[in-house]
Amino acid sequence: MESGRRTEDVTSLVSEAPASVTLSYDEAIQLSRQILTHHGYSADHADAITRNVVTVQMDDGHSHGLYRLLSCIEMVRQKGVDPQAKPVIVGNEGSLIRVDAQRGNSLLAFEMGLPRLLDRARQQGIAALSIHHAFHFSALWTEVEAIAAEGLVGLAVTPTHPFVAPAGGTKPLLGTNPIAFAWPRPGDFPYAFDFATSMSARGEIELHRRAGESIPPGWGLDAEGQPTTDPTEALAGAQLPFGDYKGSALSTMIELLAGPLIGDHLGHQTRPADGDPETRSDHGELIIALSPQAWLGARTDHYLAEAEKLFAGIEAQGARLPSQRRFAARQRNHEAGGMNIPLALYEDLRALLD
Amino acid sequence: MESGRRTEDVTSLVSEAPASVTLSYDEAIQLSRQILTHHGYSADHADAITRNVVTVQMDDGHSHGLYRLLSCIEMVRQKGVDPQAKPVIVGNEGSLIRVDAQRGNSLLAFEMGLPRLLDRARQQGIAALSIHHAFHFSALWTEVEAIAAEGLVGLAVTPTHPFVAPAGGTKPLLGTNPIAFAWPRPGDFPYAFDFATSMSARGEIELHRRAGESIPPGWGLDAEGQPTTDPTEALAGAQLPFGDYKGSALSTMIELLAGPLIGDHLGHQTRPADGDPETRSDHGELIIALSPQAWLGARTDHYLAEAEKLFAGIEAQGARLPSQRRFAARQRNHEAGGMNIPLALYEDLRALLD
Repeated sequence: MESGRRTEDVTSLVSEAPASVTLSYDEAIQLSRQILTHHGYSADHADAITRNVVTVQMDDGHSHGLYRLLSCIEMVRQKGVDPQAKPVIVGNEGSLIRVDAQRGNSLLAFEMGLPRLLDRARQQGIAALSIHHAFHFSALWTEVEAIAAEGLVGLAVTPTHPFVAPAGGTKPLLGTNPIAFAWPRPGDFPYAFDFATSMSARGEIELHRRAGESIPPGWGLDAEGQPTTDPTEALAGAQLPFGDYKGSALSTMIELLAGPLIGDHLGHQTRPADGDPETRSDHGELIIALSPQAWLGARTDHYLAEAEKLFAGIEAQGARLPSQRRFAARQRNHEAGGMNIPLALYEDLRALLD
Repeated sequence: MESGRRTEDVTSLVSEAPASVTLSYDEAIQLSRQILTHHGYSADHADAITRNVVTVQMDDGHSHGLYRLLSCIEMVRQKGVDPQAKPVIVGNEGSLIRVDAQRGNSLLAFEMGLPRLLDRARQQGIAALSIHHAFHFSALWTEVEAIAAEGLVGLAVTPTHPFVAPAGGTKPLLGTNPIAFAWPRPGDFPYAFDFATSMSARGEIELHRRAGESIPPGWGLDAEGQPTTDPTEALAGAQLPFGDYKGSALSTMIELLAGPLIGDHLGHQTRPADGDPETRSDHGELIIALSPQAWLGARTDHYLAEAEKLFAGIEAQGARLPSQRRFAARQRNHEAGGMNIPLALYEDLRALLD
């Protein structure tokens, strides 16, 4: 089978409720590439986006996996992204690497900047990669885990459109502003987290809406600034920051670091693309890499082993490290050679090829 | 008056309940220096600590102001700090400045590293200062605000002793692990925050205990891992992270960055000094500085003005920026030329001179 299963093949593959489809890794890669190029993405962009969404889907990351192809295509239709954009290195001095995505998807710009970021961090001890004028839809953990896979420590932040009220406020102003971090560990998986500084990722609210479920209290306000558990009302109103004023302060920091510091937009200066190519739907991202080797030299292995004592101490209490469910899914799906996705999503994706 | 008011002068100065004492800025400086040198701190350490605690007290920072002189002295008695230690620059390559505090107080090491950190960040765009083997008691905001005062962006993290259970756990393992950030603004005050990644600073629980008040639900667990509102039980049990598993993940990140990354202890590898000079009560700190000028060049003023739009948007909703109460106190106390401290604290401080 060349490019994912056709709809008529699907019925026999339904394995659990809700109805799902099993795709092999290669089938998912091919389906994603085909959809993206069919809608005008250059081969380079299609490859970078595909690597990302399939990697995320292999972790059962349903909110940022293949589901996000729908918004990648919608973005082309709404002129929120240039699917042929060629990112340009616009700065490469000192400890800073700057890549202008030229209103293209952020992932290709990241892949262009990453080797330079790693080199510079190894040389200088700490370095930063800023991505400018990018359409950004993707989980950040793939980026910080790529840094950790090279033995470095990664930290990434980016704003989104204004969806979140500041603590004490009632109207959307801040983005959901995720922060991701990864620390290299022996074995297959790093210590890694990637979370929105809102109580939930926006994608989680969208998934609740698609599933017809209400959202937990504390996630959102309606358009009048009143608490709501209706996902549609929360999407039209405001999300809330996690951790009250502390989460709100962190979210503000993220806007500043990935916005004015690097010369890019604040979340509230952007909005979802609406078909007008002048709409500012692109924004920035900041990724910092730190080199344990630069600090520690010959003591690196010793101190990486010391870090393991912290992880062991957390798990010894019955508490969980972040991302463990994701890593378990990764292992399970790699062993199975593929992934399950909801039938409805599969049908939506196939429909993009019509 | 040379060195703070003597106890018999105090009664007439009681201005509100609870009984308080007014100290001029100079009186506070002199009192602090005198206490510190009387207990064996070198003049350099006494000056650095005094600058810090008086600066914090001028912001009505009661938990980290002059009150902390009590623990600075207790630390000498318990051999947890070398009051004569001379910090040493142990690394000065690339974008990293490393200062070994030699088991002295962290503040003198910070002051030694700061000008180099600023230079390097201006040159490279981003730079880091790590402080090693330090006794650390102080608010971090003074350090990041010193960076913002130079037009740069500052971020600082440090672990504390193991006081906090990870989310889902029951026993102390993580430190209260504060994170502080400052962003330069026109006018007198930066955008700044400094908070513990625990639900409360440990000092806040201590102040509740001193005041005979219970703590809010959610701050702590007793020694059996059960929720408690008794400050003494929580101090003997475990504090809780803010923002559930997200705050817990951030706290873990802070331990890693200011611990194994730089070759220093994790929080749980340290404990409060107990008179044995071999007790590991010292630990590390990581401070990152980022230069808007390095990213923005001639566009710096434009983008700093863009950042102001975010702050204006937060305040337009009736939400508050962090640290505003502190800045208001600073302005009020500077205009008044001094500060109010509780009478009981004043008496405890004076008693240190006996």
